[in-house]
Amino acid sequence: MKQNIYDHPIFFKEYTSLRESGVTYNDFVEQPAIKSLLPTLDGKTVLDLGCGTGHFAKYCVNHGASKVWGIDISSKMIKRAKMENNHDHIDYICKPIEDLELANQKFDLVVSSLAVHYIEDYSAVVKKVSGLLVENGEFIFSTEHPIVTANKEAKKWVKDSQGNNLHWPLDNYQEEGKREQHWYIDGVVTYHRTISTLINTLLDNGLALEKLLEPQSTPEGLKVMPKIVNETRRPSFIVIKSIKKN
Amino acid sequence: MKQNIYDHPIFFKEYTSLRESGVTYNDFVEQPAIKSLLPTLDGKTVLDLGCGTGHFAKYCVNHGASKVWGIDISSKMIKRAKMENNHDHIDYICKPIEDLELANQKFDLVVSSLAVHYIEDYSAVVKKVSGLLVENGEFIFSTEHPIVTANKEAKKWVKDSQGNNLHWPLDNYQEEGKREQHWYIDGVVTYHRTISTLINTLLDNGLALEKLLEPQSTPEGLKVMPKIVNETRRPSFIVIKSIKKN
Repeated sequence: MKQNIYDHPIFFKEYTSLRESGVTYNDFVEQPAIKSLLPTLDGKTVLDLGCGTGHFAKYCVNHGASKVWGIDISSKMIKRAKMENNHDHIDYICKPIEDLELANQKFDLVVSSLAVHYIEDYSAVVKKVSGLLVENGEFIFSTEHPIVTANKEAKKWVKDSQGNNLHWPLDNYQEEGKREQHWYIDGVVTYHRTISTLINTLLDNGLALEKLLEPQSTPEGLKVMPKIVNETRRPSFIVIKSIKKN
Repeated sequence: MKQNIYDHPIFFKEYTSLRESGVTYNDFVEQPAIKSLLPTLDGKTVLDLGCGTGHFAKYCVNHGASKVWGIDISSKMIKRAKMENNHDHIDYICKPIEDLELANQKFDLVVSSLAVHYIEDYSAVVKKVSGLLVENGEFIFSTEHPIVTANKEAKKWVKDSQGNNLHWPLDNYQEEGKREQHWYIDGVVTYHRTISTLINTLLDNGLALEKLLEPQSTPEGLKVMPKIVNETRRPSFIVIKSIKKN
């Protein structure tokens, strides 16, 4: 059963309201990192895995992409995408990433922003992506950093007796698999994978590593979101750019 | 000034006695991982950066390497290597890795076991290694895991009031540079670098990533060194295999 938290009414409301605030880790850490890795989009065909409300799909056509497919498990997200980020050159598909089938279709670029940690079978998705890329096509994705997802129990700051943040806990690194947490609602499931699994699975599927980022905040983010400075103490995300080789 | 702790009489005595015990993280975690990544050594020329007492150099000639150069900053280590692991096909050179000059020499394989974290200018060494490799030659090395080296202060287990191990602390991840600790003697300096720096520096110097390991213990290690099971909770080492591309 693929998880579809984004169709949960409370989660959807809270999450979309957060994203609309424009003051998020996505805005100042993750999206700038993903965008810094993008090739020229001019004339490119793009597949966006976990497209949400379609901001990135629209960004791609605005930057010259000839055609973008956005796929997302959440019908609420896809509905919003079709309303807010509609475009002749974008097709939105409501489907779990794992069930994606695009026969006879090849892409110049596959992008996935913070969706991979929701997927149980990473290897199957990487294999599918590799098969969907043209030669020298690129797969660029972000995911929660394994040093964040590792812990099974405590995930938050360890504090001293005065309540000051001391450091983060680290544990359970080699125990890959399901992690459950509260994020607006109970029971949000993500999957922990080690850095070696994230990388070697790409290499084993004909994708060469081009760049790995553990992004910090942009200067603007530091101004409007002071706590984001803590990204220097522990990065929340890892962003990977890989290229299809035959 | 390059650090030469291995010539310190107390450090040298303690360290060599530890290694001779045969019951170490090197024996059960790091060396098995390095060896699992080695290509066929038959007829190969090998450079071993930080060769210590020459065990690995000898292993290479025993497995068919046509010629091995072992380099180490410590004259005590090189002296011991020449006594204990001498061979017609091995040259031992007492020199800091950073000062290595081998004009007109190219290698099929460059290996470095747990020496890279002592080197301040990682980028310069990677550049040098890349220049020393033949096309498709490999650079395989192990280093302390960035999630271990990150912390500037507390490095050991966080314990509960009963003294039970809770988890490790994680902090200061993005602050690369010098870390000082006590290991037999005070003031042992290592250099923390992020995973992205470790990897991107290779990619930027014409080396493609082939495999990344975060090794756990061998079954034998779990029997004779019970505490080594904690490698599942936080890996001590990262082992990287890369290949020279033109």
